[in-house]
Amino acid sequence: MMVEAKLKRRSIIVKIAIAGAGAMGGRFGTMLAQTDNPVTFIDLWADHVQAINQHGLLVHTDNGDQRVHVPAYLPQNVPGTFDLIVLFTKAMGIADMLTALKPVITPQTHILELGNGIGNIETISRFVPKEQIIAGVTVWSAALNGPGEITMKGDGSVTLEALGSNEAPFFKQVVQVLTDAGLKPTASHDVLAAIWRKAALNSVLNTYCTILDCNIGEFGQLPDHDAMIDGVLGEFAAIAANQHVHFDAAGAKQLIIAQFPDDKNGLHYPSMHQDMAKGRKTEIDFLNGYIAKVGARENIPTPVNATLTALIHGQEKLKTLHSREAVTA
Amino acid sequence: MMVEAKLKRRSIIVKIAIAGAGAMGGRFGTMLAQTDNPVTFIDLWADHVQAINQHGLLVHTDNGDQRVHVPAYLPQNVPGTFDLIVLFTKAMGIADMLTALKPVITPQTHILELGNGIGNIETISRFVPKEQIIAGVTVWSAALNGPGEITMKGDGSVTLEALGSNEAPFFKQVVQVLTDAGLKPTASHDVLAAIWRKAALNSVLNTYCTILDCNIGEFGQLPDHDAMIDGVLGEFAAIAANQHVHFDAAGAKQLIIAQFPDDKNGLHYPSMHQDMAKGRKTEIDFLNGYIAKVGARENIPTPVNATLTALIHGQEKLKTLHSREAVTA
Repeated sequence: MMVEAKLKRRSIIVKIAIAGAGAMGGRFGTMLAQTDNPVTFIDLWADHVQAINQHGLLVHTDNGDQRVHVPAYLPQNVPGTFDLIVLFTKAMGIADMLTALKPVITPQTHILELGNGIGNIETISRFVPKEQIIAGVTVWSAALNGPGEITMKGDGSVTLEALGSNEAPFFKQVVQVLTDAGLKPTASHDVLAAIWRKAALNSVLNTYCTILDCNIGEFGQLPDHDAMIDGVLGEFAAIAANQHVHFDAAGAKQLIIAQFPDDKNGLHYPSMHQDMAKGRKTEIDFLNGYIAKVGARENIPTPVNATLTALIHGQEKLKTLHSREAVTA
Repeated sequence: MMVEAKLKRRSIIVKIAIAGAGAMGGRFGTMLAQTDNPVTFIDLWADHVQAINQHGLLVHTDNGDQRVHVPAYLPQNVPGTFDLIVLFTKAMGIADMLTALKPVITPQTHILELGNGIGNIETISRFVPKEQIIAGVTVWSAALNGPGEITMKGDGSVTLEALGSNEAPFFKQVVQVLTDAGLKPTASHDVLAAIWRKAALNSVLNTYCTILDCNIGEFGQLPDHDAMIDGVLGEFAAIAANQHVHFDAAGAKQLIIAQFPDDKNGLHYPSMHQDMAKGRKTEIDFLNGYIAKVGARENIPTPVNATLTALIHGQEKLKTLHSREAVTA
């Protein structure tokens, strides 16, 4: 019986696309490609797509290097349809990505959202019914080193919840596929709380480390880091209460402080810091900016998150001013 | 009669010391030295003091260069006593400066405070009775180019008020001396309002330009500059009301916006930006930090000023961390 069940499970193939095949998408694609399920990478960066197709994705792991051969496409060139699209697109790129992918999304296609930020589910809901959406959050980490090359080290997990029902057969199948890939999924009945906890962590560490141009360990050494954290999280708690989301400010703070040591994430510069350094738009509007926006709408004071959002937008604008000066000088 | 009065006025000599003979102190000393009154420079920077004594202060003006020969001393070496000490010391250095100058302050010595920030008068009151204090604020500007060298261009004025009485003969004499020097003084009965207006301007332009590493004109081009200004000034207004200080937020905002054009102060990097770049402690605790401190004490929310203060303290701390790394690397 057990052998039969195992064989039966193995026979169900899930066609997977990773939309946003950067650091994290690359890691998930690499791990999922080790199962029997076919994986396709979709990414906006032409050099990255080309490098993967020519040489495979070069992956540096705790156990040495490997090359992963998975087909990669620009969003407008993707062939066929998919059972599961794992979305790692940056928050502000989700609508464009799903618009480009409309031809390959069927009434059977499920979208598993694993990107950062709050409000992504609202965006996805404009493209597919709730029953086709799985909301998730992950604490795996990875880095994109250049076109066709990522580093994926350390341990992680995934928390996910079907917006339809966690009892739906396809959702159970997704959990099984992630389990087979070693991605350590847990089905949750309150994934929103996990999404907000991660967004709160990012709204503290990404944002302050970007404004101050420092790594996570250095932020932990600042004399006022405690008050700086509380300022952000206090407003998160007020907006979460208004939005009927469970949010544990004390727990989020503990999680943030746990990142400070060098052997945790102390030496790490958050992704927003890297986006800013490279002149890319940041995800601020889906972190502190989301809190400030809802605060303004609901008449709940969010001056700390509004100020931090304005400072990040200021840095973004200055990047464009200074690069223009560099061109005209 | 008129000639007699003029002769009589000329015969009264005011012995003047400039404590803090940097950019602004250098400018005031230069202009005051053109009157009949003896001027002495006092400064903490030994190289600057030595350069002035060896070669005179080199001054670049709208009408060419000049060398001003005025004796200069370190605070602990100042000889004699003074009728008027014009204080341009940075806010956090006032107590140390007055402690060093105790031997040369007599019951007849008046202190004219012209530095930036709020709360300086409270500090000075710990050293001399109110009757010996003149509170002032100035919109003259100047730059310190290096030891013994300043640039002083453009027009300005001084607003001042005796904490004793504007009717006191010595106060009137000070106004006359400043007038003779071309410093355009106006006696006021609400100098505190002028001090807070200038502190509010500095708490916006100095602070944001330092955090964002930009000049005043660039700050004016940021998409959210309006909300960023309002965030600071709204809290200034609340604290001013609590402290019974007249504060006109709309007027302060107009004054700030008037600095944006290139032919005003648009191309200028505020002094705090220069302090930060050079690894010096900033005056933040006497600008936004003062508002946040009183807010915390009086239970009035000041999250914007508290956040900006924490960010500047964060930048100061990171400067020391990074310079230590540079030494040990």
